[in-house]
Amino acid sequence: MVTKNQIKLVKSLQQKKYRSQHKMFVAEGKKLVGDLLSGGMEPVALYETEIGIMGNTHFQISSAAASDMKKMSGLKTPSGVLGVFKIPQTRPVDTSDWVLVLDAVRDPGNLGTIIRLCDWYGIAHLVCSNDTVDVYNPKVLQATMGSVARVNVIYEDLEHFLAATNLPVYGAFMDGENVYREKFPEKGMLVMGNEASGISNGIEKLVDKKISIPQYGEKSSESLNVATATAVLLNEIRRDG
Amino acid sequence: MVTKNQIKLVKSLQQKKYRSQHKMFVAEGKKLVGDLLSGGMEPVALYETEIGIMGNTHFQISSAAASDMKKMSGLKTPSGVLGVFKIPQTRPVDTSDWVLVLDAVRDPGNLGTIIRLCDWYGIAHLVCSNDTVDVYNPKVLQATMGSVARVNVIYEDLEHFLAATNLPVYGAFMDGENVYREKFPEKGMLVMGNEASGISNGIEKLVDKKISIPQYGEKSSESLNVATATAVLLNEIRRDG
Repeated sequence: MVTKNQIKLVKSLQQKKYRSQHKMFVAEGKKLVGDLLSGGMEPVALYETEIGIMGNTHFQISSAAASDMKKMSGLKTPSGVLGVFKIPQTRPVDTSDWVLVLDAVRDPGNLGTIIRLCDWYGIAHLVCSNDTVDVYNPKVLQATMGSVARVNVIYEDLEHFLAATNLPVYGAFMDGENVYREKFPEKGMLVMGNEASGISNGIEKLVDKKISIPQYGEKSSESLNVATATAVLLNEIRRDG
Repeated sequence: MVTKNQIKLVKSLQQKKYRSQHKMFVAEGKKLVGDLLSGGMEPVALYETEIGIMGNTHFQISSAAASDMKKMSGLKTPSGVLGVFKIPQTRPVDTSDWVLVLDAVRDPGNLGTIIRLCDWYGIAHLVCSNDTVDVYNPKVLQATMGSVARVNVIYEDLEHFLAATNLPVYGAFMDGENVYREKFPEKGMLVMGNEASGISNGIEKLVDKKISIPQYGEKSSESLNVATATAVLLNEIRRDG
């Protein structure tokens, strides 16, 4: 039995304002909820529409009628599993390795894919500008495939943050130096910009070195999607090491 | 003035069945329609809700009432511009360069991103299995950002196609050889598999060399998204050349 107040709370967590207020977020789907649990995320409540969907787990799971699940869910077709989790405390950024920095990435799918890339390439800390899409946005969570449990995502005033670092700051630009010729140091910061406008002027001033992924064949005005460009640049950084 | 029959036709093109039947597809948004026109795609009809949205063009543009646009559009919030285009004739695959091959990629965003990558990395021919998502699916088109006009996308029986080629066939697997150690030839085929299950058994038999992108740090069961993995592998192939 799910109470009206629980339904109201879960529903409200679709909005960032209430996620910040309650310090909780909601995740849907057996795979994602399972990945968050095994990644160490702390559940506040877990719901399933049929007993046993989540399988063996030592967490307490409540039954929810399909009609209640529909009310709580942010999906058109609700999955049978929904979890409410505590937003974890962020950790201080460890500057003994590469750190990825995002300047106003707005698309939830892009942020989710980038978090998954951080996990793959062993980037433990992702620093986002305050106007980057919220990591606990349900569409971001879905795209992370659970890797959000393994990457420390923090939101900062980037100008302040980059001005304070001793690490070399690399930035992805259309007119930077050929990344294939770059010998990357053991640690640094890599800044990726907004989908439409790239890295903002205020942040550009704090970039020590502009890099680009060469376009093959004819040059055009086209650019790579920010998530695929991040994939290529993280690959270039790690293959060097 | 848009006639009822025109509305019916445009609406039907949201479905693959009718796209195949009429050999037409629909694209929405000023940027995408403009990119398709400048890329040489042949319009059958162009609609705008306000005169002048598309700006200067030598193509004929019809006015459509917002209410008619809403009926034609596949979007929740229709853009002011909609174009109906002829599906272009595909060209024979040119095997004098690298060819990308997709085995059952199902997500429209992934296919769109991969087409955009082909454009960036100068891959002129993309061969898709018949169960790969349709390139003229509106969500695919949106994700291509117009680059679909510059890449020859064809659908084939992959077993038949790969059995017939003389080029070396590379395939992306979780347990392949480290791609960083690979010296790629000047031409070949690269096969990427389905989002959930990877390359199918029938196709695996036709792969000459399995390659993998090394995971940095701790090994997990996680994989990269197929579009980001394609980005990294095309980058590795082109940076070699």
